[in-house]
Amino acid sequence: MPSIDLNSDLGESFGPWPMGNDAAMLELVTSANIACGFHAGDPAGILNVLKIAASRNVVIGAHVGYRDLVGFGRRNMDPSSAELVADTIYQVGALQALAAAAGTSVRYVKPHGALYNTIANDPRQAADVIAAIKAVDPSLTLMALAGAPIVARARDAGLTVVCEAFADRSYNADGSLVDRRLAGAVIHDPEEISKRMVRMVRDKRITTIDGAEIELDAQSICIHGDTPTAVAIAQGLRRALDAEGVTLQSFVGAFHG
Amino acid sequence: MPSIDLNSDLGESFGPWPMGNDAAMLELVTSANIACGFHAGDPAGILNVLKIAASRNVVIGAHVGYRDLVGFGRRNMDPSSAELVADTIYQVGALQALAAAAGTSVRYVKPHGALYNTIANDPRQAADVIAAIKAVDPSLTLMALAGAPIVARARDAGLTVVCEAFADRSYNADGSLVDRRLAGAVIHDPEEISKRMVRMVRDKRITTIDGAEIELDAQSICIHGDTPTAVAIAQGLRRALDAEGVTLQSFVGAFHG
Amino acid sequence: MPSIDLNSDLGESFGPWPMGNDAAMLELVTSANIACGFHAGDPAGILNVLKIAASRNVVIGAHVGYRDLVGFGRRNMDPSSAELVADTIYQVGALQALAAAAGTSVRYVKPHGALYNTIANDPRQAADVIAAIKAVDPSLTLMALAGAPIVARARDAGLTVVCEAFADRSYNADGSLVDRRLAGAVIHDPEEISKRMVRMVRDKRITTIDGAEIELDAQSICIHGDTPTAVAIAQGLRRALDAEGVTLQSFVGAFHG
Amino acid sequence: MPSIDLNSDLGESFGPWPMGNDAAMLELVTSANIACGFHAGDPAGILNVLKIAASRNVVIGAHVGYRDLVGFGRRNMDPSSAELVADTIYQVGALQALAAAAGTSVRYVKPHGALYNTIANDPRQAADVIAAIKAVDPSLTLMALAGAPIVARARDAGLTVVCEAFADRSYNADGSLVDRRLAGAVIHDPEEISKRMVRMVRDKRITTIDGAEIELDAQSICIHGDTPTAVAIAQGLRRALDAEGVTLQSFVGAFHG
Repeated sequence: MPSIDLNSDLGESFGPWPMGNDAAMLELVTSANIACGFHAGDPAGILNVLKIAASRNVVIGAHVGYRDLVGFGRRNMDPSSAELVADTIYQVGALQALAAAAGTSVRYVKPHGALYNTIANDPRQAADVIAAIKAVDPSLTLMALAGAPIVARARDAGLTVVCEAFADRSYNADGSLVDRRLAGAVIHDPEEISKRMVRMVRDKRITTIDGAEIELDAQSICIHGDTPTAVAIAQGLRRALDAEGVTLQSFVGAFHG
Repeated sequence: MPSIDLNSDLGESFGPWPMGNDAAMLELVTSANIACGFHAGDPAGILNVLKIAASRNVVIGAHVGYRDLVGFGRRNMDPSSAELVADTIYQVGALQALAAAAGTSVRYVKPHGALYNTIANDPRQAADVIAAIKAVDPSLTLMALAGAPIVARARDAGLTVVCEAFADRSYNADGSLVDRRLAGAVIHDPEEISKRMVRMVRDKRITTIDGAEIELDAQSICIHGDTPTAVAIAQGLRRALDAEGVTLQSFVGAFHG
Repeated sequence: MPSIDLNSDLGESFGPWPMGNDAAMLELVTSANIACGFHAGDPAGILNVLKIAASRNVVIGAHVGYRDLVGFGRRNMDPSSAELVADTIYQVGALQALAAAAGTSVRYVKPHGALYNTIANDPRQAADVIAAIKAVDPSLTLMALAGAPIVARARDAGLTVVCEAFADRSYNADGSLVDRRLAGAVIHDPEEISKRMVRMVRDKRITTIDGAEIELDAQSICIHGDTPTAVAIAQGLRRALDAEGVTLQSFVGAFHG
Repeated sequence: MPSIDLNSDLGESFGPWPMGNDAAMLELVTSANIACGFHAGDPAGILNVLKIAASRNVVIGAHVGYRDLVGFGRRNMDPSSAELVADTIYQVGALQALAAAAGTSVRYVKPHGALYNTIANDPRQAADVIAAIKAVDPSLTLMALAGAPIVARARDAGLTVVCEAFADRSYNADGSLVDRRLAGAVIHDPEEISKRMVRMVRDKRITTIDGAEIELDAQSICIHGDTPTAVAIAQGLRRALDAEGVTLQSFVGAFHG
């Protein structure tokens, strides 16, 4: 029987500024990518989210990003290797201690925003993030874009990698995501999202923006937590997967259980 | 035979701005209080200092502070308990991961600047820092001002506490430090510093700014690393303690060895 | 015929995090206290709000605060005079240039949060803010808490001062605001808010939390922009003042027109 | 009789961290590029430097940079146009107010670090900075790299542009600076620096790293203030220019006097 993980970016409030509906999303996902303070997240807010996640048995990942709060880690930057390695270790360690205080632990690392996109392809920054994860704890899993060059790079370096698909994004024929600025890049219809993801889980295939069929082999589905319809989309997706007999569970359980 | 620990605040550079002479001080101290990024220290610089400390077998402490970079953590602030607890956990955890990457580990926590002074007396903020340390790892030692109310508070809460004396500071009759803004608060003569500290180690007594004699029972001596004469003062102090037959070693060795 | 100014704290979004409903509030207020980047507000967001304010002929004030983004400027701090003076000048100047780019100009300064409360009474920090305003432009008006000691201090120093009342806050018998943490500190009923403010404008009197009557002489009413009911409260207040024949206009018009 | 301006990057201390020898350099330069808080500089430190500059009649420029303190504005970033325009206006305005408080005024804008290098060639970011300067005050001069595409772009947009040469840097045949990471990129010999600059002023020519001769027409010479030998280099250069009968004066005097 097939199983799949649902993940979402959470803990992205900052000080007086809320973001997303973390409590509701933590009822629906099996893995939570928690901001670590560089692109979003303040320690008190992060600790609060971790406690809710712990009470729901949601698996925790470190959502590390570039040090760019005002830009939300979405702007490209070129940190040196020394900087990127140490910044990544720092963020993961900070989250590990907060997770321990909340009675849970960090099981994987999923880079955020511009860092996520850059390391998908860029060998230098990818190597820095991989080295950082290995320096902190080589048993941490890396969550990465299904089909991207980083997947093989991280596996060659000895890391366990979980590939993810994006529930509400269109794909190009080469398996990359359609640029957000292009028409049709984001899919808004909950029904269509559910249909695409059920098929991806069952057949490991997805229809591209041009109508072609490509393979897409992912063990986790990312649902965004900061859109107004995030909760409704997640609920619909859970129902659709359930109806197909797909078990919703963390890849940690699936891989290491 | 008596032994004593020498500690210094290190890792306080930030990005392009150096501070202190960390490499030289790491040849002279037995414990290093390493900045954690809130009052000073960037991850790459911190990692670098940790590697040198590891190669010198210097014991590592987390020098946690208020989130106030421009004020260097020296300005009083009133974070809520939720904020102070989580900020402390965050900083200790970040340093733990960097220390692991450097092949060493964090053994104690020494708050910095205004936070250090505030928790010496203030029960609420003291309780927050104590709770944070216990939440991360109850086996971490707290380094605190000899004679201050926090010492008993932390011990009552179950923490191991190491008391420290300040090599270059004058004391009031009640055991508190003379306010930095008053004449005579800082002692500059390396000979006098050495004499006072040798006597403190041997007799557990010190002469106050008013000429009185008070008890001062400390297991560690703090020497500042950011004054131009820091290295010379530390060298003189080591020689003087050596000549008295005092062993220089970390309290970790002394306590847990 | 009496007139009154309505002011609100706006421009308090930061990067990806929105706050309040600036566009709606700018239809209702006559003065806008715009965040300057230290407690809230990023330059691009601030410029955007200033352009809307300019198109609505809303008068602009610099809402300067402590340098404490994560604490939203609500935590007490003790900057030195050199720091507080320069931080205030810096923030006002930054807003002046953004205002010029938006086709408007800064006419007054209203400190924010903990700085606002501290300078109401504290003579040292009050003097610093007053000195900063005079250094930038002595023709800038200071907006301050009606009845607080800073009002006379600033006038003695040569500044024009506008006193404000808080629409949704209870008052103590001495004219100070009831501490937010006490029951009854914040008034939620739009009708009651309107009634109190109409009376304040007409009779210069308000009922305290203990049922006493005190004088309250304010030329501006502050309505908070970041509560869900802010727009409804502002609309109700405008209607009530209109019905009493009170003209809504900026104190800049009233004072200098 | 020829004249030339000498400029240096100053005000780059931050909080407890000093940088460079601003007081000594202000005796030697005719223009000071003052940090504005985004890549370096805190308001109190900036105000202090401005006061010294004012007392020396040194002309003030706004040394605006990317919002990247830990990276000192030396890392490439891709802010949106809305962000870059507003960030630039914000920084210039903040410095204008501090300059007014110091009894002087901002006369030009010289971007810093990665922003300086990017806008030399990149049309989009160049247009953003040009638009920002025009929005604050179109009479502000832009200081830019002699020979770079931005010079014509800014002049076409109506700005006055001053071109600068770098005293201690080698040039490629196309007039660009030799990459800092290559051997020979930085010239350390004060004699050679002086000789090259005297020739550049007199003949508007310089020898490239490959031994070729190229035209280099600059109205200002940049001398770095943060190297240990900065003061000695500046003194040597002044003597050499003096000996050739070159008048040292700000381009503001030369252009607008």
